[in-house]
Amino acid sequence: MNRRHLMASLLAAYAAAATRATKANALATSPAASHSHSDHSKYHEIKHETIVLVAYPMMTALDLLGPQHMLASMMGAKVLIAAQTPEPITSDTGLKIVPDVDFTHCPREIDLFLVPGGLAGTTAAMKDPRTIAFVRELAAHSKYITSVWTGSLILGTAGLLKGYKATSHWIASHMLPYFGATPVAQRVVVDRNRITGAGVTAGMDLALTVVNMLRGEDYTRMVTLLAEYDPAPPIHAGSPDTAGPQTTGILRDMFSDWLADTEAFAKGNGHG
Amino acid sequence: MNRRHLMASLLAAYAAAATRATKANALATSPAASHSHSDHSKYHEIKHETIVLVAYPMMTALDLLGPQHMLASMMGAKVLIAAQTPEPITSDTGLKIVPDVDFTHCPREIDLFLVPGGLAGTTAAMKDPRTIAFVRELAAHSKYITSVWTGSLILGTAGLLKGYKATSHWIASHMLPYFGATPVAQRVVVDRNRITGAGVTAGMDLALTVVNMLRGEDYTRMVTLLAEYDPAPPIHAGSPDTAGPQTTGILRDMFSDWLADTEAFAKGNGHG
Repeated sequence: MNRRHLMASLLAAYAAAATRATKANALATSPAASHSHSDHSKYHEIKHETIVLVAYPMMTALDLLGPQHMLASMMGAKVLIAAQTPEPITSDTGLKIVPDVDFTHCPREIDLFLVPGGLAGTTAAMKDPRTIAFVRELAAHSKYITSVWTGSLILGTAGLLKGYKATSHWIASHMLPYFGATPVAQRVVVDRNRITGAGVTAGMDLALTVVNMLRGEDYTRMVTLLAEYDPAPPIHAGSPDTAGPQTTGILRDMFSDWLADTEAFAKGNGHG
Repeated sequence: MNRRHLMASLLAAYAAAATRATKANALATSPAASHSHSDHSKYHEIKHETIVLVAYPMMTALDLLGPQHMLASMMGAKVLIAAQTPEPITSDTGLKIVPDVDFTHCPREIDLFLVPGGLAGTTAAMKDPRTIAFVRELAAHSKYITSVWTGSLILGTAGLLKGYKATSHWIASHMLPYFGATPVAQRVVVDRNRITGAGVTAGMDLALTVVNMLRGEDYTRMVTLLAEYDPAPPIHAGSPDTAGPQTTGILRDMFSDWLADTEAFAKGNGHG
């Protein structure tokens, strides 16, 4: 892939996004983007992955939206947010997102889907037969099956991690064996076509791992640079080791009710 | 702040989010969260910051949503997404977000506001008198004035960076002097009550810097650990230095039309 191709491809992704946005809202006039779109169309190197991000009430939105940003930067890829109903989904931080498609109308012949995590909302999704059935249907056809944070518990409930290595948030990884999965303490775990990520912000590392698999290193370098993904946490406390035992203990205590409820369900509905 | 306080505070933030989400959607039943909420209410150490995230069409959503996640984890803080009209905002990656409040009904007596960046959408916002007037009104009362990516160009257009050190995405930082600002090549720049972040993913580092200023180190450590913010980019290319001259050059070429358009506006409407 030469420089001209790369340039045209990423440019087109932004032009396409600009066009979608322009249709949706009159303020979004973008003569530069639409001009470039037609100018460079003959250089496009297009792939047409269909990617489904599964949304559910009280999910942790950043699990889904970090990946949405990175994956939607792939020119030609269609990234859809699917939810049980067409109404806006409210996340566990109060964010309201409009789904692109409901479960019924969501395409099944897809390249990748991603299941985000959460706390009470995730447990509710694990217990919801329609969500689990939908995830199983996607898995029957999807080339890749992915999750972020406690989304791996939903994949597990659907029987999709049996015999696979997987990860989750450090607070929940010990539940993976109930689903027949082997927990690996890594930020992103790739085992055949299952790709699982650790907590929340790991979604961005997972998505860039996916971009690398689907589009290669040059493309990933451009997406990474454009997002200026050169993280510098002001306080290094993103893992139990760096946060220390006090902070880690507080979180464990804080979520003990949730853990007990979720673990009871996992034990009774596992695939171990 | 002792362990009990910390625990109760963060727990309450999640319980509050759970309650909001439950009201919005019947699937989101969370007996654990609401139980804990009442259980621990007597231990709450509450602050009541009001935070406004300014949304506009074709913004880069992750600029806003990374911070939304981190800031909404502060117990008692009210985090509002404000847009010109109540309709969903479509981002430059096609994400549709429902605003919490429109410009007219948005509170002005606030603690902090954040302006996200983008490309053509940001330039359109710079040229939109109503957006600039709204940002100036917020600035008149807000304790902190913040931006991510090219959001600093909007702050600059509103005359809010004159005499301040500031940052932006590496592709746009050279425009800051048109607004009387001194560019600093740092991920997060704090100059008195102006806090500006570099590109897109820098919003998370900026938000955690803000959490640290508003709630202190213990709180920041908990928010960081809960989000498992221990980033591990699969390819280190988040800065022009690590991405190398070829990738950097491609992006500069790709956005040359946007740069020319935006720079022409900045020159003619600056405060330098």
